Order: sequence, then C-alpha cells, then structure tokens
Amino acid sequence: MNYKMIARLLSMILFAEAVFMIPAVLIGLGYREKDTVYCFLISMAVILLISGILALLSKGSRGSFRAKEGFVAVGSSWLLMSLLGCLPFWLSREIPSYIDALFEMVSGFTTTGASILSDVEALSHSLLYWRSFSHWVGGMGVLVFLLAIIPMSGKNEGFTMHLLRAESPGPDVGKLVPKMRQTALVLYLTYIVLTLINFLFLIVGDMPLFDAVCTAFGTAGTGGFGIKNDSMAGYSPYLQNVTTIFMLLFGINFSCFYLLLLRQVRAVFRDEELRMYLCLVGVSILLITLNISGLYESIGEALRHAAFQVSSIITTTGYSTANFDLWPSFSKGILLMLMLLGACAGSTGGGLKCARALLLLKSLRRNLAQILRPNQVKVVRVNERVVDERILSNTNAYLSAYVVILILSFLLISIDGFSITTNLSAVLACFNNVGPGLDTVGPICNFSQFSIFSKLILIVDMLAGRLEIFPILILFSPKTWKRA
Amino acid sequence: MNYKMIARLLSMILFAEAVFMIPAVLIGLGYREKDTVYCFLISMAVILLISGILALLSKGSRGSFRAKEGFVAVGSSWLLMSLLGCLPFWLSREIPSYIDALFEMVSGFTTTGASILSDVEALSHSLLYWRSFSHWVGGMGVLVFLLAIIPMSGKNEGFTMHLLRAESPGPDVGKLVPKMRQTALVLYLTYIVLTLINFLFLIVGDMPLFDAVCTAFGTAGTGGFGIKNDSMAGYSPYLQNVTTIFMLLFGINFSCFYLLLLRQVRAVFRDEELRMYLCLVGVSILLITLNISGLYESIGEALRHAAFQVSSIITTTGYSTANFDLWPSFSKGILLMLMLLGACAGSTGGGLKCARALLLLKSLRRNLAQILRPNQVKVVRVNERVVDERILSNTNAYLSAYVVILILSFLLISIDGFSITTNLSAVLACFNNVGPGLDTVGPICNFSQFSIFSKLILIVDMLAGRLEIFPILILFSPKTWKRA
Repeated sequence: MNYKMIARLLSMILFAEAVFMIPAVLIGLGYREKDTVYCFLISMAVILLISGILALLSKGSRGSFRAKEGFVAVGSSWLLMSLLGCLPFWLSREIPSYIDALFEMVSGFTTTGASILSDVEALSHSLLYWRSFSHWVGGMGVLVFLLAIIPMSGKNEGFTMHLLRAESPGPDVGKLVPKMRQTALVLYLTYIVLTLINFLFLIVGDMPLFDAVCTAFGTAGTGGFGIKNDSMAGYSPYLQNVTTIFMLLFGINFSCFYLLLLRQVRAVFRDEELRMYLCLVGVSILLITLNISGLYESIGEALRHAAFQVSSIITTTGYSTANFDLWPSFSKGILLMLMLLGACAGSTGGGLKCARALLLLKSLRRNLAQILRPNQVKVVRVNERVVDERILSNTNAYLSAYVVILILSFLLISIDGFSITTNLSAVLACFNNVGPGLDTVGPICNFSQFSIFSKLILIVDMLAGRLEIFPILILFSPKTWKRA
Repeated sequence: MNYKMIARLLSMILFAEAVFMIPAVLIGLGYREKDTVYCFLISMAVILLISGILALLSKGSRGSFRAKEGFVAVGSSWLLMSLLGCLPFWLSREIPSYIDALFEMVSGFTTTGASILSDVEALSHSLLYWRSFSHWVGGMGVLVFLLAIIPMSGKNEGFTMHLLRAESPGPDVGKLVPKMRQTALVLYLTYIVLTLINFLFLIVGDMPLFDAVCTAFGTAGTGGFGIKNDSMAGYSPYLQNVTTIFMLLFGINFSCFYLLLLRQVRAVFRDEELRMYLCLVGVSILLITLNISGLYESIGEALRHAAFQVSSIITTTGYSTANFDLWPSFSKGILLMLMLLGACAGSTGGGLKCARALLLLKSLRRNLAQILRPNQVKVVRVNERVVDERILSNTNAYLSAYVVILILSFLLISIDGFSITTNLSAVLACFNNVGPGLDTVGPICNFSQFSIFSKLILIVDMLAGRLEIFPILILFSPKTWKRA
C-alpha cells in the first residue's frame, strides 16, 4: 500500500474542504451569525491542521499507484471529509449530537438528503448553505474536482484513471476526450454551467436569492436537502416545474450533454440507457397521475405532483411537493422501485443506475439463450458495441453486493422495532441516496428517531451507495491491508 | 420443437395424475363423502380423456430431445396438471371460484401452502387428502417420479438429463450414481423412506391417522397446507418438535442422505452448503428466541416456537404454531430474509437456495479480488471443487431474474391497495413457495382477499418459484416458439 500517496491526496482534499467553507463564513457574516461563524473558523483550523500533518507525512511520496490505492484513497477521503465536515454543526450545538451531525454531513456529501432535523428552518443560514453546498460537491465528487483543477507532479493516466473509476458512478467509466484529466474538466464545466442555468431559471421565478442558491445546489447534486420544513411544497408551481425538469436533466449521463455540444444529436437519442430512463419516467408519471387523480382538484395538479415526485425519486434527489406517504399503495410501490433503480450512470444521481439494469437484463437474456443452445457463444451489446465480459461479471457481482448490503442493513436497523415499511424504505432511501422514505421516515418526517446504532448503519449505507459499494467493501476488507 | 415427444410426456403425466386421485376416492368412500367422490370420478374421466387424446397425438414420437424441449415439457406439464388437478375442488363447489381452486392446486403442487380458504376444517376429507398429497407429489417432482419408475423406449441419458435439470431445484444437478434414471430412483426411495419415518414418529405421538398422513405429506414436500384452521398450534409440543426436525431434514440436499448411507459421514459434514444452512438455522433460532422471550411464559416455550417457525420458513414449508405476525420487527425481518433464502439445493424446499447464495457470495469475493489485481485469474471453489464458469454466470442471471420477477409482481399486486408489508410478503411467500406472509396474508389469515388479477400473478409466481424461473420464462418466451 502506497500510504504516502494516499496521505498526500487526503491532505489536498482536506485543504479543499477548508477552502469550501469560506463562502459559508461570508454568508454567516452577512446574516450576523457570529457564533456559527466562530464554529466554522475553528473547524477550518482543525481541518487545516490535519491537512498539514498529512502533508508532512506524505513528504517524498512517489511510486506506483494501483487500483487498490485508488479505492482506498476514495473510501478514506469521503470518510475523513465527513468526519471533519460535520464539525460546524456539532460545535455550534445546532445539532447537539456528534452522530447526528455526522449523519447530516454524510447525507449531504453523498447527496442523500436524509435529515435528522425536525425543524430545518431553525438552522442558521451559514449552516443551511454548507448543507446544500455539500450536495453540490458530493454530486460530482471531490477527487474529480481536484483532478480537474490541480496540476500534480507525478500524475499519470493510470493514477487519474484509478481515482476516477473509484469515485464516478456507473458500471464503466469512459473517456470523453483522450486524456482523463481533460475528461474531468469537461464534466465539471458542464456541471457548473447547468447549475448556473438552473439558478437563473429559479431567480426568474422570483425565488429569493439564498433559496435559489441552495435549491440549485441540491438539484444539481441530486441531493435534496430542503431549506424549508415542507421541502418544495410552499414554492410556486413554476418553481416546482423548473425543479422537476432540472432534476431530470441532472439524472442524465453527462456525456450526453457533451455529445449534444458536439451536435451528435442522433447519438444521444439512440442511447439505450437514456431511452430506458425517459421511458421509465414517462410511464411512471402516467401511472401515478391516474392513480392519484382522485386526491387532487384537477388532473393538472395531480400531474404536477406526480411528475415532481417521480423525477425527485428516480434521480434520487428527494425533494417533495406532496406527502406521498398518503398516496395509494400502487403509487408508493412505483416510487419504491424507482428508488431502487436510480438515474443514469455518469450522472450525479444514485441507485443501481439504469445502465446496470440494462446490462443485467441483457446478460439474463443472453444466459437464457445459451441454456437453450449451449454450443452458441453470444456477446452482449449496448449501443451496438460489445460489452466486455468483465464489466458484465462485475455488474452481476454488484447486484449480489447490493442485495447483501440491503438485507443486512434491513435486519440490523429492524432491531429498533419500527415497521417493516419504515425499515425497508429507510434502507432503500439511504443506500440509494434518495433521502425520504415511507411511514416513520416519510417525506414530512425525519430520521431522528432511529438509535445511534441504526444511524451508523445508515451512514455506512449512504457512503456505500454513493461510492458504489466496492470502495467501501475494499476499504473495510482485511485482505486490502495485508502485506503482499 | 419436438411436439410429439412433449405430448407423450404430458399424456403420461396426466395418466399418473388420474391414478394419484384413486386414494382420495377411497378416503372419500371411507368417510361417506358421496358428492365429492362423484366429483373426483368426473375429474379423473376428464383427465384420462385428455391424456388419451394426447397419447393419440403423440403417435410415432421419436427424434431429438434438446434442452428447449426439456424446459417446455416441464413448464407445460406443471401448468396442465394444475389446471386439471383443481377440478375436484371446483366441481364439488367446496371452492366455488375456478381461479381460487386453481390457486389452491398450484399452491399444493408447488409446495407453497398458501391458501384462499378461511375455514380449512370445512373441507371434506378426500379433498384435504388431495391437497396434502399434491405437496408430496410436487416436492420431488412428477417427471422425476415418472423417470424413476416407467421404462420408456427411446429414453436416453440426454433426455433424462434435460428433464431432471429443468425440474429439480438447485444451480446444478449432479448424478449420485452413474445413470440419471438410477439417480431419480435413489432420490425417490430416500424420499419415501424419510416420509414413512416421519409418519411413524407422528403416530407414536398419538396423532390421528388421517392427520399424520396429511402432516407427513406436507412436511416431506415442504408444502405446509394445514388441515386445521390453526395449522400446527393445536398439536402437542412433541408433535410440533417432531415436525420441526423433519422439516429441517427435508430441507437438506438429498445427496447428503445418500452419502450417509454410504457412510461418508465426513464428506457430509464438510459440505459447505449444509454448514451454511445449519449455521443460519442455529443463529436465527437463537436471535428470535431472545427477541420473543418476553412474549412467552418460559424461555423453553419461546425456543420451541422460534425453532418451529424458523424451520418452517427456511425450508419454505409454511406450517405455524404461533402468529408470528405479532412478533417484534426484528424477528419478522429475520423470517422475511429466510423466506428469500430458502433451503438447500436438491431438497424439496424452495427459495433462492443456500447453494446459490454461497455461489453468489463466492463469485462476489472473486470479483472484488480481481478488481484489485486485474491480471490474476481466479476460480471459484465449492467443497474444494472448481465451479464451472457457466454455472456461476447462470446463478448470477438467476439472481437478476429473481429480482425482476419480485419487483414486477410486487408492483402488479399492489394495484389492489393492500399495505406494502402485505404485498411484499405475499410475493415473497408465493414466489419462494413458503405459504404464509405477514399482515393481511399472515399465518392466521389467507389469500382470499386479493383480486383475480393478483391471484393469477401469484399463481405464476408460485410456478416460477418451484420450477426455478427459467422453465417458465422459456415457456412464455416468443423466441422458444419460433421455427429455427
């Protein structure tokens, strides 16, 4: 294990985290939140101190950087970032328990949006900003950000590749442009531009400036922390519809936007994953609208709520305009399944990802054909290209790991004694980085009632979900730490 | 498609089904149930007529019999057997709706044990016997039975192999003895002897003769149709404990019993699947006993109920001695997970099977290792033998198919509007051939409240579960019926 290289990365990430806190400090000064600003400054000092120590430890780092180091670096950086990033919540006593503060921070960085706060509006502005900004940073990934902006000596293709692979969502990470570093840059630029456009659309609809910033961050990262107790229910239909559309956009593979820039419109609309995603969104909105039409005054209103909730859940954002826990079982069932599925690979959304579902279905069909004709060798194609067998095998392994983690988490949190619907939806909502679940953790409730033990389980689930399981499994596997 | 060979098999199976009804007729005569006997005789006449027509159609059958024909033969024979086997229920008006009668029959043959009857005790003895006997027939499979006893011209190794593969549970069907036909014979003899021993143990405990016959059939087939409204709750602790032990035994891979006969005791206790199964049973009983100890007068009573319910659920039998729907969430959670997992491959139990879970976990571990060391080629071993890559790949495909069917069924039956716990547990209980679920379909309730549409979905689930998905998928796939 190349500890020095990992220490160097961690040091840089912590430095970045401290820098990210500066706007929160400025906002705190603007709103005259003296105590909170003070807590932010202490947190920054602690973070910079640890960053400095890690920098000293990493002196003279060089040598090989393999897949193993990539996974360990990503897993440990997310853990450390959360452990220290939650300090302002805790120090300010606005969230008195450290585990609760950690839960809130992990929920932020992993773009889950599950909260332990009953009264969000009581939080100071600087903390509300920090919460929402953590979504934005977590959505695309901090390492991707660092790779995109900081020139590092000794940084080679393999190094960048391993880090990007470990941090980016989806079964396979492709290059948009010949070099990985430029790919990271293109991704971040797209991300920034789209967030800005979203922000402008919100401002045009007369949303207050602070609300627009936080909402845009939460939408872009598909996070879903609201700054109001009723999430998005109190905003105008225009603002809700804008958010519906942008949530859907941020659930699309970012390489599609890049292809659109290159005017390869046909390639985008032939993309099998995009088609599956849009089909599922369309069908789900239709079915839910019909199912809930009796609950609302007009079919238009039902459609608006259905579209908002479907977009919010499939992209794993987690904003809400309606208490869908009161909807009929069929609609709730559809939403549960969308939680499980998630958005497109290469987007900021969580879940299993449409690309994986597509690969699993195609590989199932292939196996059925091979059972009937054992001597035939068939390949699996997506977008007319042959999929590597190792990616197929890893995708299937991913499903196994997914099911195992789901079952174990479900069992462990059921010790608390809540209903089966609560436990199942809590695990699905955290593991897939959605946010709200059903019943006791429904859209108008929160996660504060769980025991510390269950909260820790859900924290691990959120991290495992955002980093797509393998980095967390590898980080906690004894084999990783054995000397070769 | 070799239609003639399939017609011939179907004709033989229906003939066997008519013969199987003879004991029910005799029992009906013994209990003076004239009307029901009359209905049985009509049903037998109809079945024999169709069997005769199929025999005529199959004249001159010969030629190749491939994997495809094996799957289609198995899938269609189970469907036909159920469609006709439910006639006595329907004709006697003891179950007035045909769909309900079909549900009950499919539940019998697939050894599910889910019932639509609120008052089982109102059923006549001949029908109670037929219900329980269907478990016994379905447990080991009708085709396996035919292969074991009837010498068929033109029957070769490949033919027998394809049928056994399609009908027997587990990821891989091995031969115990050099010839497949003898393997089928050994399996059925073990099955008969074990059922007899179970029956004798029940008789020794003063169980009435009729009850002992039906209970032994339900235990051996891991079916679980009770002949009392309170399932096994009214019987003595001795009878409950005997049933606990025999349920566990029938959940073990039958090849283990064969190895024991050959005195290869060490090989049996080194079997990784058996160890996993026994470990899970032990741990589950322990955890549930601790969790429910406050609900019962003594820890011994809690242990008895925990052991009974765990054995009943993991072997997918479905008898009950307690209303576990009232147990705490943690215990219910464990039972739900055991439903999903199921018993050992090569037993009469249903579910995913321990062998598959073992393969999935090992293949996941292999993939993790390969992500870290991409140039290493690793194999997966079970019981020190290398597992064929195709079996691994099919097992992974099985998991995908399992998840897809689970999700679709859950969504479709949730149209009825029952709770999420009801819908999830109903699908798990039917698909894994367990029987009782939770909430509206809990151990003291039944499936009668579902709509006809939902019942049809659950019927397909039961068949897909018992035949392990692929035969049903292949039967309903348009590709199967296309001319090459």
